[in-house]
Amino acid sequence: MLIVKKFGGSSVANKERVYNVANRILEDYLAGHEVVVVLSAQGDTTDELLEKAWEINPNPSKREMDMLLSTGEQQSVSLMVMALEALGHPAVSLNAFQVPMYTSSAYSNARLKKIEADRIKSELERKNIVVVTGFQGINKFDDITTLGRGGSDTTAVALAAALDADKCEIFTDVDGVYTADPRVVKNARKLDEITYDEMLELASLGAKVLHNRSVELAKKYGVELVVRSSLTREEGTVVKEECKMEKMLVSGVASDKDIARIAVVGIKDEPGKAFTLFSLLAKKGINVDIILQSVGRDNTKDISFTVPKSDLKEAVKLLEENLERISGSKIEVDENVAKVSLVGAGMASNAGVASTMFEALYDAGINIKMISTSEIKISILVDETEAEAAMNAIHEQFRLHMER
Amino acid sequence: MLIVKKFGGSSVANKERVYNVANRILEDYLAGHEVVVVLSAQGDTTDELLEKAWEINPNPSKREMDMLLSTGEQQSVSLMVMALEALGHPAVSLNAFQVPMYTSSAYSNARLKKIEADRIKSELERKNIVVVTGFQGINKFDDITTLGRGGSDTTAVALAAALDADKCEIFTDVDGVYTADPRVVKNARKLDEITYDEMLELASLGAKVLHNRSVELAKKYGVELVVRSSLTREEGTVVKEECKMEKMLVSGVASDKDIARIAVVGIKDEPGKAFTLFSLLAKKGINVDIILQSVGRDNTKDISFTVPKSDLKEAVKLLEENLERISGSKIEVDENVAKVSLVGAGMASNAGVASTMFEALYDAGINIKMISTSEIKISILVDETEAEAAMNAIHEQFRLHMER
Repeated sequence: MLIVKKFGGSSVANKERVYNVANRILEDYLAGHEVVVVLSAQGDTTDELLEKAWEINPNPSKREMDMLLSTGEQQSVSLMVMALEALGHPAVSLNAFQVPMYTSSAYSNARLKKIEADRIKSELERKNIVVVTGFQGINKFDDITTLGRGGSDTTAVALAAALDADKCEIFTDVDGVYTADPRVVKNARKLDEITYDEMLELASLGAKVLHNRSVELAKKYGVELVVRSSLTREEGTVVKEECKMEKMLVSGVASDKDIARIAVVGIKDEPGKAFTLFSLLAKKGINVDIILQSVGRDNTKDISFTVPKSDLKEAVKLLEENLERISGSKIEVDENVAKVSLVGAGMASNAGVASTMFEALYDAGINIKMISTSEIKISILVDETEAEAAMNAIHEQFRLHMER
Repeated sequence: MLIVKKFGGSSVANKERVYNVANRILEDYLAGHEVVVVLSAQGDTTDELLEKAWEINPNPSKREMDMLLSTGEQQSVSLMVMALEALGHPAVSLNAFQVPMYTSSAYSNARLKKIEADRIKSELERKNIVVVTGFQGINKFDDITTLGRGGSDTTAVALAAALDADKCEIFTDVDGVYTADPRVVKNARKLDEITYDEMLELASLGAKVLHNRSVELAKKYGVELVVRSSLTREEGTVVKEECKMEKMLVSGVASDKDIARIAVVGIKDEPGKAFTLFSLLAKKGINVDIILQSVGRDNTKDISFTVPKSDLKEAVKLLEENLERISGSKIEVDENVAKVSLVGAGMASNAGVASTMFEALYDAGINIKMISTSEIKISILVDETEAEAAMNAIHEQFRLHMER
């Protein structure tokens, strides 16, 4: 069996953890499997390098930042191989040039385009454990790129696809995917399995277990992922195309407080105004999430939508400058909101999920500010202070703590 | 003019020094020159990485060590480019893969074999300052190698040769090559110029300004070197094929305390015994320096020679195990010795240099234990405690403090 195992930075932060990971790798290797390991930079290495860079230049070019940051993973992989050697087993580290792993040109946020697997395969044939740098690639100029947030997960999935691996394990500091954040919902339950689509919705809703891009890639190439802890022996959660349990109506509830609501009031009820508004935001790369249009007074309409808190200032400035073009009368902002979402692949074919959810919120006395639905997701906007109560109420109502 | 400038690790140890170097680079760039910069790892980075490695594995493979250590230079070059960018000038960093710089396969002590200059040339054409990682290369397996001690100097010289540079400046923490170590001989004088051969003799004698390999390479490709300080504006010393001053009988005096003398006493006076002895040492990679053979008692001979102190134990063990094959009767060791050498390209054609040197030592009451001469060098072995007195006596006798 060919197994790809990815370990995050905290899993290899010091000597003890490096050896802990080395021993887990060896369990598979000694059982006769071929093992390819993907590592992130150790613990705080990336933060320390960022600090060093910013001290010298608060606004360095992304090319040079990638050149700098990629050294963190290279250190991790060589140290891991040294540990495996100390334990008496053959291993070899490879960076993005050596694999090679090609990406798009965009520094700091590149996309993996092609992985050539020959070198890895020949190392595996020589019975080596292969330890590969995550998070990085090279572009067509032979320059080093990095893959952005969650990049090492993406590297692992892409390698699993390129090598046609039998298994791709993502080790994190949690032991799987839960029905809700266990810090918020006390009796949240670990899921045995979840579909790619559900995982995508949960990740984008702030579940922070796997980055969306890695899940998208896994879905595209049908790579079955296992999310599990590097510190425990728990089985973890399998992420795959279809889950065996038809009954999995609802798989989890997540919340995201990093949003703000903007309302543009009094827009003339003419065609093209919404288009003007959202294309303004799109041009600046501002992601708009929930959108709601309602009828206003005197033949006007109001358009409300949410944006990430980090984009709020720029969005408001942009809208104020163009208020006349949009024909709005004023802009209202609400920063104290949270999005709470219910995700489940079974929703699409089951009526009544939304009403059950709203019932739970009504019973808990929580006011709903906006609603948005997709095939496998229902999101609502509530007051930020009520987010956790909302999650708990929904979790309880759908009995997510119970095994199904 | 195309200028290659190399800066050592202490020259880029922190933000202030990085900016000091950046400004020196810019002086040439803004004067209209093309500038290629070679950097070592910052300050203690290499030592810190070594410590990290040894903590995990006291005896790691050299391949992985090179993979680890090479990250230090990559960090230096990216940080330097960030500083140049902050000062408003275009620059680009390149590592061994990107140049590319090919070496022999030997990890931790590789030799540069070929540098492809196309990428650097095209970056220069685009008016970029090019900042290249010193000390590292890639071998035919696409693995990272390092060049061993003084490796960054070698990188700079090799780049200057490959680019047909007009100038190759090696910046160190001293402001040039001196007639003797200024910490030992108070009125030691900085030389304006020195030949490759003299520099080679001085370097191997412990002058520690330039590593031999870089000087050999400079001699081979006729690259004129300038050794100067990164902290002052002093002119430095030019290292080249021939110096204009015919009178440069003697260019400097150096000492090396890192040696020990071994004597094998009572060797049968038969052919092949010396060969047996030295091939034993050569096979173990032990460098033998001054060799002296003298007639012993009863048709035997004594062979004395010096080895680096670090090799003494192994050499003695080896000789004791093979004492019968060598037909020696016993082994004597003297650790308290120092080698003092006088170097000068003019010696070859001038008799009397040796006798003047010996006269100086006689006047100072210093006993000579061994003598060895080459075309441009006279080395003597003295008691370790008398090394500094010997240097001063010789320096004085040849009036090396006086401009000629």
